[in-house]
Amino acid sequence: MHRLNTADPGFAAAFAVLLEDGRNVTARVDAAVSAIIAEVKAEGDAALLRQTARLDGWMPDGPGALRVSAGEIEQACATLPAPLLEALEVAARRIEAFHRAQLPADLEMPGEDGVALGMRWTPLDAVGIYVPGGKAAYPSSVLMNALPARAAGVGRIAMAVPAPGGALNPLVLAAARRAGVEEIWRIGGAQAVAALAWGTESLAPVDRIVGPGNAYVAEAKRQVFGRVGIDSIAGPSEVVVLADGANDPAHAAMDLLAQAEHDEAAQSILVTTDPGFADAVASAVEAALRELPRAAIAGESWRRHGAVIVTRDWEEAVELTNRLAPEHLQVMVDDPRALLVRIRHAGAAFLGRHTPEAIGDYVAGPNHVLPTGRTSRFASGLSVFDFLKRTTWVECDAEGLRRIGPAAVALAEAEGLDAHARSVALRLG
Amino acid sequence: MHRLNTADPGFAAAFAVLLEDGRNVTARVDAAVSAIIAEVKAEGDAALLRQTARLDGWMPDGPGALRVSAGEIEQACATLPAPLLEALEVAARRIEAFHRAQLPADLEMPGEDGVALGMRWTPLDAVGIYVPGGKAAYPSSVLMNALPARAAGVGRIAMAVPAPGGALNPLVLAAARRAGVEEIWRIGGAQAVAALAWGTESLAPVDRIVGPGNAYVAEAKRQVFGRVGIDSIAGPSEVVVLADGANDPAHAAMDLLAQAEHDEAAQSILVTTDPGFADAVASAVEAALRELPRAAIAGESWRRHGAVIVTRDWEEAVELTNRLAPEHLQVMVDDPRALLVRIRHAGAAFLGRHTPEAIGDYVAGPNHVLPTGRTSRFASGLSVFDFLKRTTWVECDAEGLRRIGPAAVALAEAEGLDAHARSVALRLG
Repeated sequence: MHRLNTADPGFAAAFAVLLEDGRNVTARVDAAVSAIIAEVKAEGDAALLRQTARLDGWMPDGPGALRVSAGEIEQACATLPAPLLEALEVAARRIEAFHRAQLPADLEMPGEDGVALGMRWTPLDAVGIYVPGGKAAYPSSVLMNALPARAAGVGRIAMAVPAPGGALNPLVLAAARRAGVEEIWRIGGAQAVAALAWGTESLAPVDRIVGPGNAYVAEAKRQVFGRVGIDSIAGPSEVVVLADGANDPAHAAMDLLAQAEHDEAAQSILVTTDPGFADAVASAVEAALRELPRAAIAGESWRRHGAVIVTRDWEEAVELTNRLAPEHLQVMVDDPRALLVRIRHAGAAFLGRHTPEAIGDYVAGPNHVLPTGRTSRFASGLSVFDFLKRTTWVECDAEGLRRIGPAAVALAEAEGLDAHARSVALRLG
Repeated sequence: MHRLNTADPGFAAAFAVLLEDGRNVTARVDAAVSAIIAEVKAEGDAALLRQTARLDGWMPDGPGALRVSAGEIEQACATLPAPLLEALEVAARRIEAFHRAQLPADLEMPGEDGVALGMRWTPLDAVGIYVPGGKAAYPSSVLMNALPARAAGVGRIAMAVPAPGGALNPLVLAAARRAGVEEIWRIGGAQAVAALAWGTESLAPVDRIVGPGNAYVAEAKRQVFGRVGIDSIAGPSEVVVLADGANDPAHAAMDLLAQAEHDEAAQSILVTTDPGFADAVASAVEAALRELPRAAIAGESWRRHGAVIVTRDWEEAVELTNRLAPEHLQVMVDDPRALLVRIRHAGAAFLGRHTPEAIGDYVAGPNHVLPTGRTSRFASGLSVFDFLKRTTWVECDAEGLRRIGPAAVALAEAEGLDAHARSVALRLG
């Protein structure tokens, strides 16, 4: 764990090390992924069956067995305790409401000058959602990926989830059902991405693929980009907790560990103006690590990438936060909104003493798929905007064209594009 | 030129060929680009000077010579005829007005239930704009890239433009000045992208890089993606012209050629219900090609990739357009809006008989940087959204957390993330 104090002479150098902390090193799997994609393109379903046997360790009877049937989904849901289904329902309703509220309005500028302009938002026809399987099967991620697509009006959602040994997590299936996903494929890895992008005899291609995955999935998304759209490549998670000394150190400590337990490469950073509180949180982290089930992972993350930073004032704390541009930001002070307006870069913010980041992972409403690794400087969390595209339009009448056409002719001629100039000039008569 | 008729038995196969027409084949330059980027990362300005000498054919005196001075910009503008500067002003004003109208509002859901939610839009701190130089220096592209960034509120815009022999197009400099770009670098190619992404002693790094370029620039953007944001990789341009027999064939022909003159790989497609009109347009294209300055390029594009498609009715025409998902769409019929509402995929639409696509390239207002190669199925034109990012926020009070917290605890426990569950449960007291 890094301990930093802005008053120390070595602070700038130590903070620079923290900023460039290379947590996001992935294996080079380009060639293996190219080969998998080429097989799926060339052989379709046959390639998927072979790869599923080889990579997921089970042999489907045929292409039909790759698709999860409605009966299986019903059966899986029937095994789940009612309180868990109710919790899923609370989450789904709130996520739906927030993403519906994001829906943008079309733009229309009537054009009294004879030139009407506008911009129209339309949903994508078909999207693919990749859901990691096995040990890290997260039903919450199914809701966070599928519900914004539904809110945007996407007609077809195809979900791919690897099924080691053929089995699936029932809560993942319940989340898919609640999110209105009817097309679920028991396929994982680069082969799932290839099938979604290029299609096979059984699986129609989609227009965009979203969702996190391992190094193979990430590389496959990179390789099919252009053929289809993709969301950003997710890296390890991070949180910055801004907290004053009035907080319970055990709360801040557990918030830091909630991030750390995701992954050894996750990063949790406390920033406070109170050195005594900093020490208390560091001790509380150690105490909590003694009894957490995922202490091995969380402890490794905390020791390697965790940090406690003491600043002279909140001004400094805000400035460091902007440089860190964190995925998650907690602001545990009396007037968190006063600090929030000065934060320029953060994927999602959690305000006040009663808003642990985990509330946003599950039920608050905003999306938990967020930009990692300082990319909130330029990127945003998943939203309805990922499932919409825009068409701008222009409509001139003869008078409007007479008004603005000559400027277009002058510029087209200056650029040496005569057919452009003539296409306007011909209509000016 | 492809001639298709939906009534022909071979239509489906011929249309499939048109859809998969591989116009977007670029050279493999990965290794060369990796080497250039590594040099800039390691050696900064010194690498830029060396590469400029080697690749752009002029030797800057020192890093200072890479930046275009205010005096040079003034001098360049002074050489330009007033009518051309006025045309630039007409374009700039309209582009500004349209992009300001795009600016989205923040979202706030007050949270009577003790859970307030919101979403805030903020501009990027710094963006880089790549402007191709040499023979294809397009001042209109400077406006189309820089003005949306300004409208979004981006604080710093750094423009890079190659200067073969050290010289720049004065109209490009005038467009930059009009767009409020004060930081112009006489650097091109992969080295410009590397410098913008990683920074050098003289050039501070940016957060996102936009703008078209050659194969080296495109590959460099691909390689720095993640470190910074990038816009989509532009492919060759295309237009679909839907036109009924009441149009002047010479108009439709020139519209097709305006697209074709960009590039041998451009694609122009006429779709009409009137076979006689189809013939007349094909003849008018041949006639116009005899006198166009860029006939060699336009003719090559038309012969290789151009198409004239006759459909039975407008329903079919709309359906084919949706499958083509064109970058540009002209709708030259009496009631173009009635067709537009049935178009699901198009980057930009130009409605009616008085709205040639070229009006949108220069002065109409909407952006001319648009998704190519059927990517309007999932992608959109450049806009203020390219220069903004979102931060969502959640603020629970104690009562709000008591209401929704238990559902989060249940889901976190089901996912095996105990620190997540405890960070909420601790606060439920």
